[in-house]
Formats: sequence, structure tokens, C-alpha cells
Amino acid sequence: MNEYILGVDIGGTTIKIGQFDTNGTILNKWDVPTDRSNNGSNILKDIYTSISTKLDIESIRGIGFGVPGPVSNGIVFHCVNLGWGEKNVAEEFNHFIRDHYIEIKVSNDANVACAGEVYQGSAKGYKNVVLFTIGTGVGGGILVNGELVDGFTGAGGELGHIIVDRKYQLPCNCGKKGCLETVSSATGIVNLAKLKLKQSTNPSLLRQFDNFSAKRVFDLAKSGDALALEVVDEAADYLAYAMSLVTLTVNPELFVLGGGVSNAGEFLLDHIKAHYYSYVGPFVKNQKMVIASLGNDAGMFGAAYLVK
Amino acid sequence: MNEYILGVDIGGTTIKIGQFDTNGTILNKWDVPTDRSNNGSNILKDIYTSISTKLDIESIRGIGFGVPGPVSNGIVFHCVNLGWGEKNVAEEFNHFIRDHYIEIKVSNDANVACAGEVYQGSAKGYKNVVLFTIGTGVGGGILVNGELVDGFTGAGGELGHIIVDRKYQLPCNCGKKGCLETVSSATGIVNLAKLKLKQSTNPSLLRQFDNFSAKRVFDLAKSGDALALEVVDEAADYLAYAMSLVTLTVNPELFVLGGGVSNAGEFLLDHIKAHYYSYVGPFVKNQKMVIASLGNDAGMFGAAYLVK
Repeated sequence: MNEYILGVDIGGTTIKIGQFDTNGTILNKWDVPTDRSNNGSNILKDIYTSISTKLDIESIRGIGFGVPGPVSNGIVFHCVNLGWGEKNVAEEFNHFIRDHYIEIKVSNDANVACAGEVYQGSAKGYKNVVLFTIGTGVGGGILVNGELVDGFTGAGGELGHIIVDRKYQLPCNCGKKGCLETVSSATGIVNLAKLKLKQSTNPSLLRQFDNFSAKRVFDLAKSGDALALEVVDEAADYLAYAMSLVTLTVNPELFVLGGGVSNAGEFLLDHIKAHYYSYVGPFVKNQKMVIASLGNDAGMFGAAYLVK
Repeated sequence: MNEYILGVDIGGTTIKIGQFDTNGTILNKWDVPTDRSNNGSNILKDIYTSISTKLDIESIRGIGFGVPGPVSNGIVFHCVNLGWGEKNVAEEFNHFIRDHYIEIKVSNDANVACAGEVYQGSAKGYKNVVLFTIGTGVGGGILVNGELVDGFTGAGGELGHIIVDRKYQLPCNCGKKGCLETVSSATGIVNLAKLKLKQSTNPSLLRQFDNFSAKRVFDLAKSGDALALEVVDEAADYLAYAMSLVTLTVNPELFVLGGGVSNAGEFLLDHIKAHYYSYVGPFVKNQKMVIASLGNDAGMFGAAYLVK
């Protein structure tokens, strides 16, 4: 009989499920809406029902889950976006399976996104990798010797919440001020741009807009708008600093940048590199940095990686 | 026949060798002077000679080495203090052993000190531990899931060279400015004290001395000298910040502080804790932090841990 592994990326709105063969080739993928009612108590059952409708449960060798919250040793501590408190996903899911053994593993969604890029994305084959997912917020995932670093309280790879800025001191959702997320996420880049527009009367095409996106800032920076360029360079400097801290801690072979902001591609990487080496000094000469390639599917691939 | 493992900590002046049984109990330890002549080309032979004089080589199951330089995948990149360039320690040492197989592993001295505390010191039994060795400089060692994190270019755990200070910008031996080592090592604490003595006319018993040690600063701080207390608190703040960066990266179960400065004990830990939680925010509530217990023997114990 064929054997499959499944990667399940549980988001606040949608659950993405991928079916893989044991070589890591994706065979099928589908979505299930996330039912957040009753503290998300239907979520695991909905996943089981969806899977068992499509596949013979006995053909499944393992299921990996990515969840939006801290995880350690297989225990989810809480997922605000799902309504979950502490949860042993493997134990609960096995209630549905009953007489068949399926290996079940779970990790944080930002961590599994890193594993996804390692499994079938732009970090394929690497074993020591750090991913920064730069979107609305900044997430991080760390792989050391092929294993994700969840950390003791699930705070491993919470790279968006490293304090890097003591100048603007913008408030972060986590309750602190000056976290990487406040100055280098898509939101942070817009924050920085609006501050700079206020603090000077320098001309900028950004002044045409009441509101604008981080993409707009990047596009104008690429076309030579000086203020937009200053914003991009400052956001990249904060990222470079955070990457230096990670370098002098776990010293990965490869950094991967994902999330919407990473669509800026080589332009972003060049601005990061312009600052990075001054922070790492003699310890690293040629750091590999690439853009992620799996987009929103990274979590699904990485969840499968957990049980490959 | 009895089987032994050996831990060999190669320093710039002295090589410390420890003989352990397979349960990790130390049976014997001795020193060999480090011969740095001819680019340290006699060092491994001297170690072999010393070991083979004391022990039947066939009774040795494994030898771990700690070296004062960057190491990755068993390859030493360079050790300035020994005169070594790139070196495959296992391969070279095996030339002396010939017909008997001995497992040989090598890691950086600050990393093996961390492993030593895990093997038989104040982190005994833990698997996720970060050690800061705070002496003349600041070294670091990181253990994730029981394995040392050497890093891709051997820069794993180079925690003394994380840039934490942008105010004083003191030059570091690594060529950068504002590294943790410049403000929180024994040297750094004296630096901070001298700066503060210059910058104010506030009374302090430190003004009696032309020169003083970090220990003097701690002793006066403990007895209530306001300026000394300010210095200790600032050095502890920088350490707390560096520890928060490590927390949001690998999120260890336990931090261990070693080196001469850690003799300040709970007094130092209390000042660190007073700042640490403001940097980690909601991610960590009760971080365990302890003082190292093995002193200068930590490296020897940790080298043995590599082959236990």
C-alpha cells in the first residue's frame, strides 16, 4: 500500500493541508476553513474529517502540524487566534484515529515555514538555516542540525520581538517597544516612512499619498526617491543587526527571507548586506542570504517535514 | 578491560587533561605545558606522549578536545594563541594512535565549557543551556537538544561579540565597537567605572585607587558605593539584553554564568534579572539562571562530554 505524510498548517482563517509521498513530493493540497467557535474545539475534528474523507487513514504514516502559537516538546501552550489554551495535539488527534498508529508532530507556524523552505524551497538540503518571515509582523524559524529549535517555552525563533530600536521606541503588539517588528515589518516600514515624512520637509513622492503600503515605499526607493530609500535602508539596517545577533548565536549556513516584504528581492538583500558585515566583524565573511520560494505554502511543506 | 574517556582543554599556556570513567566520574587530571613553538606543531604529539605514558592507549574509548578558536564539523579554522592554522585534529591525532580506534571530537573552548557544566556542573542533566563565561573577555557556549552549536564558520555562541552598546562605543579586540565584551567583561566593568569616574565628580571610594579590578567594583557596589553600584547595574543591563537576544533565538531552559565576574554570584544575577524581563516581555516568565560550578575545569569536563 502507498504511504503518505501530511502537512497541516493551521491558520486563524484557513487550514492548509498537503498530501506528500515519502520522498517529499506534494501530491495534493486543499483548504479547510478554521472554525474558531467554542474556543476552536472543532478544529482538530474538522481536520480529521477532511483527511479521512479524502484518504484511507491507514495509508498515512505521519501528520505534522504548524500552529500559530508557542509550542515546546509537542505541547501547544496557547493559540490566541484559534481560541486554544494548552493542548496536546498528538493526544487529541489520536482519539479520532483509534486503532492505527500515526506519528504526529507539532511546531510553531513560523518555525515550520523555515522547515518548509528546507524541505522543498530555497533552503533545500541545508541543515542550519534561519528564516525571517517579514510580513505584517516579523516571524522567525531556526533549524539547527536539521532540527527546529522550539525552545523551552516555545519562544525559540521569536526574532520579530528582539529589541533593536531605541530611537523611535514604537509600541509592539507584544507589549514592548522597539521590537524588530515595529521597524522592519511591512507595518514597520510604513511606520518609519510616516515618521520621516513628518520629521522633515524633504521632497518625496510618498507625500502624494495619505496612506501607502510597504510595497509603495520599496517601489519608490527602487526608482530613486531619496526619502523612501532612506526608509528601506534603515529597515534593512535593523534586519541586518538582528541577523548579526542570530549569527553570533547559532551561526547558520543560510539566511532565508520570506513574507511579503521579501518580494523586494535582491534590492532588500543588498541593503541588508551593506550593514550586516559591520555587525558580525571578522566572524563571518560570506554569509549566504536568499529569498524564500514557497510563499504561503511554506508552512504546509514544513509541517510535513516534521514527520518525514 | 576498563574503558576511559579523556577531556583535553588546550589553552595558550597549559593543556589540562582529565581522565574519566564511562559514567563521567573524573579519576585523574594533570597538566601539560603548551609548546607554542613552530606554530604549535608539537602540541598534539605532546598530548599523545603524555597520555600514552599514563594510560594504555587501548583502554581509551574517546578523546574530546577544547581549543581556543573557531571549529566547525571537527575542523579547527585557526587558533591564534596556539599558532595553529586550519587543522583536522582527529586526523592528526590518529597518526599517533595507529592501529587502535579512538573516537575523537573537537569544539571551541567556550562551547566545551558549557558542555562541562552540563556534564558535571551546575547545569547537570539539562539539554538546552547557554553559558556566558565572563572573565577578561566574554565567551559563550550554546547547547541545543544536548548538542553544542558550533555554527557554520565556528561563530556559534560568540556571545561576547554581539554589539550591545552604542553609547560608549569602546573598541573591542575583534575590531568592532560596543561588543558585550567591552562593557560586561572584567575589563569592560573597569572601563565603565573609569569612564563614570571621569564623567562626574560624584563621590566614590573607587577614587582612592589609580587602578582597580572588577572585583573591587563589585565589592564596593555590595557595600553601597553609589557609583560602583551604577557600574554593576549597567554591566548587568548589557548582559540582560544579550541574554534576551539569546532567549528569543534559542530559548534555553537554563542560563549559566561562569568566569571570574560570576564570583559576584546572586548579587550579579539579581541585577541581571532586574533588566532581563523587560527585554523578553511576555515570552518568558521565570528564566532559570545559575552560577557555574566547575571553574577552570569546565573545559576539561566538557571536552570529555563530546565523546561520552
